[in-house]
Amino acid sequence: MGRDCDKFSRNQRIVGITKVLTETPNKVVNLNTFTEMFNAAKSTVSEDVVIVRETLEKLSVGKVETVSGAAGGIKFTVDISEEEKEKFEKKLCEIASEEDRVMVGDFLYVTDLIFNPNIIVPAAKILSSIFKDLDVDYVVTIETKGIPLAYEVAKNLGVQLVTVRNRNKVTEGASVYVNYISGTNKRIQTMSLSRKAMKKNSKCVFIDDFMRGGGTAKGIKELLSEFDSELLACGVLVDNNSEGQEKLMDNYISIIEFNGINQEGRAMVNPSDKRTL
Amino acid sequence: MGRDCDKFSRNQRIVGITKVLTETPNKVVNLNTFTEMFNAAKSTVSEDVVIVRETLEKLSVGKVETVSGAAGGIKFTVDISEEEKEKFEKKLCEIASEEDRVMVGDFLYVTDLIFNPNIIVPAAKILSSIFKDLDVDYVVTIETKGIPLAYEVAKNLGVQLVTVRNRNKVTEGASVYVNYISGTNKRIQTMSLSRKAMKKNSKCVFIDDFMRGGGTAKGIKELLSEFDSELLACGVLVDNNSEGQEKLMDNYISIIEFNGINQEGRAMVNPSDKRTL
Repeated sequence: MGRDCDKFSRNQRIVGITKVLTETPNKVVNLNTFTEMFNAAKSTVSEDVVIVRETLEKLSVGKVETVSGAAGGIKFTVDISEEEKEKFEKKLCEIASEEDRVMVGDFLYVTDLIFNPNIIVPAAKILSSIFKDLDVDYVVTIETKGIPLAYEVAKNLGVQLVTVRNRNKVTEGASVYVNYISGTNKRIQTMSLSRKAMKKNSKCVFIDDFMRGGGTAKGIKELLSEFDSELLACGVLVDNNSEGQEKLMDNYISIIEFNGINQEGRAMVNPSDKRTL
Repeated sequence: MGRDCDKFSRNQRIVGITKVLTETPNKVVNLNTFTEMFNAAKSTVSEDVVIVRETLEKLSVGKVETVSGAAGGIKFTVDISEEEKEKFEKKLCEIASEEDRVMVGDFLYVTDLIFNPNIIVPAAKILSSIFKDLDVDYVVTIETKGIPLAYEVAKNLGVQLVTVRNRNKVTEGASVYVNYISGTNKRIQTMSLSRKAMKKNSKCVFIDDFMRGGGTAKGIKELLSEFDSELLACGVLVDNNSEGQEKLMDNYISIIEFNGINQEGRAMVNPSDKRTL
């Protein structure tokens, strides 16, 4: 990246540092990366970093922390302001309660939303800002619809995404299988994960699009225990309370709540109460 | 975002502009967004933007274009330098040819890679920088393993991701079904897409993790024609040439090539020849 270019001005170095840091959240970046990139002294780069840190915090878009030690440097952690968060939750509720989103069987159609980067990026920021101090080794999801949100959270936390399958895959090698009861169709299903997918003794968060009764999350917890690994918490986009049932899982956060269908045939959706662990 | 804060310095405005622009690729951002955010004059913000543009181009990490007209403003488009691209491709080939990646049946295990943000982010930059001038309406993928790469490309191109399913889903409403022959197990499979998933007369690119014979891409093309929509091109992470067969699809690009297993039982992998459309 530009090592053979001329000298860079402070303004230019600041642009580059902002780009690199915000693009690799939760990863420690050594200051040498920047001294080499800009052919500048460490003291100069340190001053640049102070400006970047102060501005990102002033704008409430993230923090820049100093990590000391031999492998030290600086790292960016994702944040979202309360104002942005509320604005996004309100907008998401409006979209989710649009006409034509209620399908046969009173299912809420959100497939477009969970594959829309404009929705997934802010939703992942909300979840990541809550999970960022948990010292997570993996973000776990189950195919298919939770993948974009889980991927974005994994990126924000600087860790690998692990995707549990619900069919046997010939290309995955020796795998562990667990049965679970899914909320959507209330029948026993099987989830599987390759032995190669995860190191033992790992700490995980589970991310999904919907949570109804928490049966899937409970299955994930059991599956992870087969890897001597722990499920610390869950995060979902939509908390489905339309049947008012008890959750099998209490350590979770959600962004919006779906409370059933009103008399005009629209979904009743509001920002979730489950905002902290 | 910080509208009620004090004044911002040039350095601080530049940090904020870089963050906003690089986070929303291919989206037109009106200059008023920044004049409001920083409580600054349009002429001041215009000068800031020049600095951000020049630096991002100097570092070969993206371009900032001016869009004129009533809905005008500036937009950031993703780029990657030749140096970064080559470094990434080389590293990816090394990883893919590690021991223990060859599974029973001579399948190459890449599940960890296609769910790893450190791999997916640069891979998506390579594909996006080639597709960015195609004026794409949707990025299309098929569940499951292509989703993170396709999502990241969709984000870079500023469009919605559409994920084709290979099972019937009760929550998707009226859907279109197409049969296709998948390369992995050479049997007839069914792919489906909800009528709600895509507007008619759309232009699409198809993104997947692997391409063997191109049977899946051909199925996608047929499926899209049911939506009066067009498949402009395909992009894959791994071009599987291990069986040396003809592709059913020629308008595609790939990042690395898998050419079978060598005598030591390792995958033979090299940067792809299919680098341009």
